[in-house]
Amino acid sequence: MHNFTYYSPTKVIFGQGMVPKIVPELQKAGISKVLLLTGGKSVFASGLYDTITALLRDAGIAFETVSGVQPNPRLSKAREAVAVAEKIQAQAVIPVGGGSVFDSAKAIAASAGSHHDVWDIITRKQKITAALPIYGILTLSGTSSEINDTAVINNEETNDKMPVAHPLLYPTVSIVDPSLQYTVPLQQVRYGGFDTIVHVLEAYLAGNDTGEVITEHCEAYLRAAMRCLRALPEKLHDYEVRSELTFCATYAFSGWCGLGRSGRGDFATHRIGHALSAIFDLPHAVTLSVIMPNWMEYVLDKGLNRDVFARFGTKVLGVPENAADPARAAIDAFRDVIHSLDMPSRLRDANVPAKDIPALAENAARTLPFGSVVPMDLATVTAVLERSL
Amino acid sequence: MHNFTYYSPTKVIFGQGMVPKIVPELQKAGISKVLLLTGGKSVFASGLYDTITALLRDAGIAFETVSGVQPNPRLSKAREAVAVAEKIQAQAVIPVGGGSVFDSAKAIAASAGSHHDVWDIITRKQKITAALPIYGILTLSGTSSEINDTAVINNEETNDKMPVAHPLLYPTVSIVDPSLQYTVPLQQVRYGGFDTIVHVLEAYLAGNDTGEVITEHCEAYLRAAMRCLRALPEKLHDYEVRSELTFCATYAFSGWCGLGRSGRGDFATHRIGHALSAIFDLPHAVTLSVIMPNWMEYVLDKGLNRDVFARFGTKVLGVPENAADPARAAIDAFRDVIHSLDMPSRLRDANVPAKDIPALAENAARTLPFGSVVPMDLATVTAVLERSL
Repeated sequence: MHNFTYYSPTKVIFGQGMVPKIVPELQKAGISKVLLLTGGKSVFASGLYDTITALLRDAGIAFETVSGVQPNPRLSKAREAVAVAEKIQAQAVIPVGGGSVFDSAKAIAASAGSHHDVWDIITRKQKITAALPIYGILTLSGTSSEINDTAVINNEETNDKMPVAHPLLYPTVSIVDPSLQYTVPLQQVRYGGFDTIVHVLEAYLAGNDTGEVITEHCEAYLRAAMRCLRALPEKLHDYEVRSELTFCATYAFSGWCGLGRSGRGDFATHRIGHALSAIFDLPHAVTLSVIMPNWMEYVLDKGLNRDVFARFGTKVLGVPENAADPARAAIDAFRDVIHSLDMPSRLRDANVPAKDIPALAENAARTLPFGSVVPMDLATVTAVLERSL
Repeated sequence: MHNFTYYSPTKVIFGQGMVPKIVPELQKAGISKVLLLTGGKSVFASGLYDTITALLRDAGIAFETVSGVQPNPRLSKAREAVAVAEKIQAQAVIPVGGGSVFDSAKAIAASAGSHHDVWDIITRKQKITAALPIYGILTLSGTSSEINDTAVINNEETNDKMPVAHPLLYPTVSIVDPSLQYTVPLQQVRYGGFDTIVHVLEAYLAGNDTGEVITEHCEAYLRAAMRCLRALPEKLHDYEVRSELTFCATYAFSGWCGLGRSGRGDFATHRIGHALSAIFDLPHAVTLSVIMPNWMEYVLDKGLNRDVFARFGTKVLGVPENAADPARAAIDAFRDVIHSLDMPSRLRDANVPAKDIPALAENAARTLPFGSVVPMDLATVTAVLERSL
């Protein structure tokens, strides 16, 4: 087990009917003015927005709302929200939404707290010295943004999608009520669930040089997420299925799965995926599903990770112990999982043509270094993309 | 999955050679005066005390030391340390030791921070309104005190052993270097490891009405702890074995294993065990090993928990799926684990005579209510103790 530091300070309030608990949490911290941040129309259509604003009004907590945060959250919207937060002297940011709303909230909280432009903070031109606390309400699982210190923001002017992470960006409180996600369409729930799976796999497939207990925890997450996703079409409103999937989604990317590993995770799939969504505006989960199985083949062709992939197959995917080539069988079985979720496992099935590979590789290479199993450079990123056609 | 709140804010710095990291953590928080708290002689004999005091001196951090905290930590020592903390106006408490030193540090931090007597705080006569932050260095695993908000203090005047828990009592930072425990004698390491197992079992055996993923996480902890304990006599200084056992010990009682359960844990074994150690001064782990298998038999005789115990047997203890009575076989196998650690599984083997059962039951009953599988009262506590003879 390699040395590590683990820090996951967010208080998670999990379960049906937990939204009102945000009020005593704000009151305990003496917060009386907040910025509410939301995505598109669903939070208004579902009545959740009215519920939350009524709770805040009853508690005498003043608020201003900025709505319209999009998937692959945009810099311009974050800048707009920072201006509002500064105008009302907000003491906290309340994201009500999914990963893009939480990610934006972190960028806004850091910018408003540190008094620097959002993009200067994302690009590390300016340091995060303070951040408004974040009290969030999750309405779409997948990114684990509700529990981690990371935000990914899209600069729509330059087509750059960049991550930033800082200990001050952990949400103080995240309210995770799985039943709020009943209104999310099946395919979007699947995208969130697949994102969860890949978050675990980025650590697990990087090599199991940590304690066996952590590796088994990863496998428990993977089995649970896949079992819930299989059950989903029949049980879209089954609380047991939805709560376990939501639980996995929240904790899969808390850092736990990477503990004690030499590299904590590979993340080549994520970085190449970010390039795909910067240029093609594909759903985040699809950018992962068209890369990861092909990255696995690329790695296996280099003679690496055979045992790791074989274990993934037998412990998670139902590949028989005595399969002729369990590592290769694991990749095939993983591709089957992807297809069973009505998702593509190759670029061509996501309408990404070969001619765009140089631009994609160049875009991904901007965030080098990444990749622990195969350290990536422009040539290896290109090779993975070509393998993914 | 039942509703829950999970909050585990302690930053854990884990691994060989991590002790010096305490200095930048204190400096970041602007702390320049601390109370060092230690147990008996081992921290001096090993050289660790000299290492830490040299680090503090080099960093210009003033300190005063209170040593001599005993197992089943005593109220009088905690009061002595509070007086010192107040005299030097300590800004933090630095426990260097095992669970009893961390537990004492919490009681001291709460008393010094809230300006009330330690026992008034433990007995909830006075509220915890503030606490000094705790930056700890762990030298003996077992209680998970380094990661949780709970302290158990022994009032040696009244023979009361009482727990207190408060969110302000989570250590801010805990440094967990498994190699610091190489000097701990085999039997004491086993006691810590067994304590870890029982912490998981208090949740796991209370009934698996949570998500499957949590139940599987519990099983991974149990298998890992048992595997490491089996390897221990041959591999007392094997870092892989010791680091995984230490990891399990730290996180087994963070609250994770109880997530999403109706009762979060049974804890009858712990409460009855506390009575045993208050009167007999037995090692904490032995107070658990002489109760838990017998509590299991008591529960099974009532026709309860058959499936839960059977699953424990097949998933953790190697009981064959087709065993005639897997629940009963699990209890027998668990008893075998206890004996393999040179520990007793019955009161008579710990020299606790039948005549003391009324006094033990009366002592345990002072902390009622407890017990979720069978809710306990004086009569049921007595019955469990009689089953444990």
